[in-house]
Amino acid sequence: LFGELLSDSEIALEFGADAFTRHMLEFELAWTRALGQCGIVPVDDAEAAEDAIMAFAIPDLGESSNRDGIPVPALVSAIRQGLPEGVAHAIHSGATSQDVIDTAMVLSCLSAVDILSQRIGSVLEAMEEVLERFGDRPLMARTRMQASLPATVALRIEAWKRPLEDHLARADKVRSALQVVQIGGAIGIRENPNKHIEDCAETLAEILGLKLGPVWHTDRSRMVEFGNWMMLVAGTLGKMGQDIALMSQQGVDKIALRGGGGSSAMPHKQNPVASEIMTTLARYASGQQAILGQAMIHEQERSGAAWALEWLTLPAMAEAVGASLRHAKTLMTSVECMGMAEPRA
Amino acid sequence: LFGELLSDSEIALEFGADAFTRHMLEFELAWTRALGQCGIVPVDDAEAAEDAIMAFAIPDLGESSNRDGIPVPALVSAIRQGLPEGVAHAIHSGATSQDVIDTAMVLSCLSAVDILSQRIGSVLEAMEEVLERFGDRPLMARTRMQASLPATVALRIEAWKRPLEDHLARADKVRSALQVVQIGGAIGIRENPNKHIEDCAETLAEILGLKLGPVWHTDRSRMVEFGNWMMLVAGTLGKMGQDIALMSQQGVDKIALRGGGGSSAMPHKQNPVASEIMTTLARYASGQQAILGQAMIHEQERSGAAWALEWLTLPAMAEAVGASLRHAKTLMTSVECMGMAEPRA
Amino acid sequence: LFGELLSDSEIALEFGADAFTRHMLEFELAWTRALGQCGIVPVDDAEAAEDAIMAFAIPDLGESSNRDGIPVPALVSAIRQGLPEGVAHAIHSGATSQDVIDTAMVLSCLSAVDILSQRIGSVLEAMEEVLERFGDRPLMARTRMQASLPATVALRIEAWKRPLEDHLARADKVRSALQVVQIGGAIGIRENPNKHIEDCAETLAEILGLKLGPVWHTDRSRMVEFGNWMMLVAGTLGKMGQDIALMSQQGVDKIALRGGGGSSAMPHKQNPVASEIMTTLARYASGQQAILGQAMIHEQERSGAAWALEWLTLPAMAEAVGASLRHAKTLMTSVECMGMAEPRA
Amino acid sequence: LFGELLSDSEIALEFGADAFTRHMLEFELAWTRALGQCGIVPVDDAEAAEDAIMAFAIPDLGESSNRDGIPVPALVSAIRQGLPEGVAHAIHSGATSQDVIDTAMVLSCLSAVDILSQRIGSVLEAMEEVLERFGDRPLMARTRMQASLPATVALRIEAWKRPLEDHLARADKVRSALQVVQIGGAIGIRENPNKHIEDCAETLAEILGLKLGPVWHTDRSRMVEFGNWMMLVAGTLGKMGQDIALMSQQGVDKIALRGGGGSSAMPHKQNPVASEIMTTLARYASGQQAILGQAMIHEQERSGAAWALEWLTLPAMAEAVGASLRHAKTLMTSVECMGMAEPRA
Repeated sequence: LFGELLSDSEIALEFGADAFTRHMLEFELAWTRALGQCGIVPVDDAEAAEDAIMAFAIPDLGESSNRDGIPVPALVSAIRQGLPEGVAHAIHSGATSQDVIDTAMVLSCLSAVDILSQRIGSVLEAMEEVLERFGDRPLMARTRMQASLPATVALRIEAWKRPLEDHLARADKVRSALQVVQIGGAIGIRENPNKHIEDCAETLAEILGLKLGPVWHTDRSRMVEFGNWMMLVAGTLGKMGQDIALMSQQGVDKIALRGGGGSSAMPHKQNPVASEIMTTLARYASGQQAILGQAMIHEQERSGAAWALEWLTLPAMAEAVGASLRHAKTLMTSVECMGMAEPRA
Repeated sequence: LFGELLSDSEIALEFGADAFTRHMLEFELAWTRALGQCGIVPVDDAEAAEDAIMAFAIPDLGESSNRDGIPVPALVSAIRQGLPEGVAHAIHSGATSQDVIDTAMVLSCLSAVDILSQRIGSVLEAMEEVLERFGDRPLMARTRMQASLPATVALRIEAWKRPLEDHLARADKVRSALQVVQIGGAIGIRENPNKHIEDCAETLAEILGLKLGPVWHTDRSRMVEFGNWMMLVAGTLGKMGQDIALMSQQGVDKIALRGGGGSSAMPHKQNPVASEIMTTLARYASGQQAILGQAMIHEQERSGAAWALEWLTLPAMAEAVGASLRHAKTLMTSVECMGMAEPRA
Repeated sequence: LFGELLSDSEIALEFGADAFTRHMLEFELAWTRALGQCGIVPVDDAEAAEDAIMAFAIPDLGESSNRDGIPVPALVSAIRQGLPEGVAHAIHSGATSQDVIDTAMVLSCLSAVDILSQRIGSVLEAMEEVLERFGDRPLMARTRMQASLPATVALRIEAWKRPLEDHLARADKVRSALQVVQIGGAIGIRENPNKHIEDCAETLAEILGLKLGPVWHTDRSRMVEFGNWMMLVAGTLGKMGQDIALMSQQGVDKIALRGGGGSSAMPHKQNPVASEIMTTLARYASGQQAILGQAMIHEQERSGAAWALEWLTLPAMAEAVGASLRHAKTLMTSVECMGMAEPRA
Repeated sequence: LFGELLSDSEIALEFGADAFTRHMLEFELAWTRALGQCGIVPVDDAEAAEDAIMAFAIPDLGESSNRDGIPVPALVSAIRQGLPEGVAHAIHSGATSQDVIDTAMVLSCLSAVDILSQRIGSVLEAMEEVLERFGDRPLMARTRMQASLPATVALRIEAWKRPLEDHLARADKVRSALQVVQIGGAIGIRENPNKHIEDCAETLAEILGLKLGPVWHTDRSRMVEFGNWMMLVAGTLGKMGQDIALMSQQGVDKIALRGGGGSSAMPHKQNPVASEIMTTLARYASGQQAILGQAMIHEQERSGAAWALEWLTLPAMAEAVGASLRHAKTLMTSVECMGMAEPRA
């Protein structure tokens, strides 16, 4: 109903059932290939298993998720269905559901980081243009909501731009934190099914374009780091939205925008909708991060309770940031005027 | 992908585009009728307008929401399209977008309260049965996670049941808080279009089966009260889920459940999935309430920024509580055994 | 360093070590008296025990709290020290630490509700005066931060006043929820030390001026309700603060206040400090409520982990609301002008 | 009353009025010296001003904070009191209150990072010892709270240790993010009082042992990064606490600890108080981070409302993490036994 105002369909796709299941199958395919390459299962079995995975038609996994808490047990048993025992054994052996889910989630998160980073770049370009057009114009600086000293439009735009540039630079660290395959086996000690398991894990990581590191079944720091980055981006955009909403006020009149929301009762109004929603989404993302933080308390060798908090918050945060970046772009390309009419003497 | 594990399709429908738009049209229809009945517009115009609203085929409003921040301006202008001026004037006049959205939201929330209350009742019944079957069996009471003194199963079940009963009783207060129509006009002073506006507002409330009270454009307490109630219900269920997960531990072994989640790596396991997720959803709902609380800071006569926080959190909380109640029901009807084998001497 | 800007010493006292220990001793004294009156211990022992409690010089309990997680075990054993066995037995028998802490907390919370309610009343009075002086003056209504239609100052003040009045009315329900003594004994079944324990519990409640209800060791709803009420009050004040900060902007100029914060770099500025901080405290209180909500997940018969969340959040929230009410009062008594110069024609 | 259970006096001191005021004076002293060295004020005036700052007896600033929202205006005017105009002018000129507060806060935060890092190191050492003593003993791995496969104690301890080591490594990045002096002048453009201001800022940073970067008046990312780090540390400790509480359960019996909390009603109990509180503090810190995240929405050139959220949350989070690290240390040095009696065959 609210269209793309508060959500983002492109980002949503990356975390949706189709993309996520595709990522889970990428994991299974890579793992089967790795099992074969490292001699853990016979190469023939591995190849037959790969064919089976590639030919696999994904069934609806919703109901089994409801039962198992995760879609993996049903997925694995559906893939194995009807396969000879050796071939079936070349699938998923030595891996556990969490390996599949976490690696698939990492792939979805990385796609989201790419989309978000690219949008940050695009917002920065649009900002640059506004800066060139209006940066020299006079603007009264306001501290604690009070007029303080005369300045120029550049002061305010640069306060939006600089942190966004920093966040873009931070994206590399986030990507690096996320690019670690999850492969720990049943209880996170990566010792099954045999001594070549470390090679196999290494191969898996290579095939998927990820890195190998220690098992992170119970250490959710990388997910929290990703959330933190999204909260930072959303926060800077929230500041920008707040500033624009304040500049739009009659009496202050420091920005004029094309478009702007209509009112059903007051046709003369131009509501600074995009800027308000950027503030909304910043507060929303910030709140989700507190929930995500609870996922750190991941008891024993695997917590169903703490883990599921990530699935509830990360996609929602990514959509919020994605939508906010779209709004920022819309705003920056709709600026008709910023600051006062005459360039500062 | 996660099916109904973390979400709830029945509740989702109540906040979905179809139901919400239907509620918005219920508002418009009732308002038009009220305008006619109170002599604010000619009865003929009102009747023609009612016909137009009833015959109206709802277009996709997503894109206009994206522009206006709300779907109402586009909705109203789509309904009015092609109507004679007088008839068009009999639609929405004296109302504002917020009146439509808030009233529609109230209707969705009330539906959710009904569903949730009915489910609480159903969980209580299932609990009662477990209490009858196993209530007398011995159970070691545990305080601060330590065995303390011998007790019976009843002690623990009653600690789940009593607060749920209280929450069911609290539902009436929540319903009463929510049952207030929003009708304030452009800036919340309910003075347009003429002096009969109070009668008209009264009529509107009657038609919709709601009450009339002071305009609450900027006072979001009732929404926060609804959120608080959902957080309480989720919290009690979270306690119950936590208890059951703890009772399921080997070594403690105080509950046996039919079903339970499968594991892809360890087929011997029976994961207490539903109970874990109840804890997850309690933490999630609690976090959303902090975001909803920010909606209280609703600046001036209408805040787009604060308002939108309600749309992001209330449906999500209702789904979380709905899902948690389903899990509670599943658990209570799957109990094979609670407590120790022999009734307490 | 920040003085009473963000905190409140009067409220802090109510939750401080002195007041809290005094409340714990009130509980012990009342319980001892009840044990005697109900014939659970010999009257002579009870009287000697009462004397001992009244004469008791409170030691520093911090270190033992650190060890036991609560000050009660050390407190009880300090009181009993050197007393004859029968007299010692007339102290605390049949009660548990949680009974003492929860009842003492309820007494502190009730004091806080009283102080806060009284301050709400005082803010309402000051508002009434501003309303009388400036209510008729013209003010441009602003929706979504945009000028919408001409109105009067009364529109805005009433939007602050009405919810505050409602919150004052809600205080009675909160008081009623809080006025329940905690007395459950070791595991919450109130069955020790003998069959007269219910009479004894009833007597305890009477002595303390509280009510008796079911044991609420693990049902923390009343604490969450208290938090919710504080969040509502803080939220309404946050809206008021936000409005005043917006009205103070040069260019909007709809309020003039005496006082106002100085600036170290710009002596000409008058910062609307109190109004900003009211917004700060509303966001703060809202965030604490999400933490408090986690206390609902109170596992088994007593959760040290969940319980302690209340001690971290409730006093902090009460101080935040208390400070915000002081700021509201300061603002309302500092108004030199609101709205435009001439009353609306 | 709760002693050091939920708080930390050593950390509290670093954010307390004394330390903070000392940091503010360090800033003023360094700035005066820099003004002199860079020829912005006469060297004689700078030296006289330095003497005045060093001789300055700090008055109580609480009341003026209450009025100005910050202690700086009163502090600066108290220092300048009675000084000749030139000397007075050599103090604070070209700086603003936010420069002083933010730089002082950075110094306090850096001290906290040092203390916390040192404690992490100390916990890691104690863990190492437990690992050596008990790492080889058998322990049943538990996933989703269910016994899964036999493992050793090392599996669980390493799951606590590895993320803590990572957090210790992350501390360097946090330190680097925090080590940036704030010096922007009245509105953040660092252009007053003259063209040598950049040199002067550079000198200031050198004197204080900090770095110079762009003005960050409105970009609060570094504070949020600090909060994120604390949330991560608290989260890992919360997981550890949760694990230990679960291991302490009778029936599971996988840890034996010296000490442990007493009970007022059940003298036989040994409550795993420290472990529970570590979970409490993790949830608390996580909740504070959501509030801190709101500080990103720092409107215009300085937001009193957003800024103050940092003062409410950062010290509280640092104390929570500090207390949790103390508890972790206590636990690790109190382990009498972990895992089962016999080393795994």
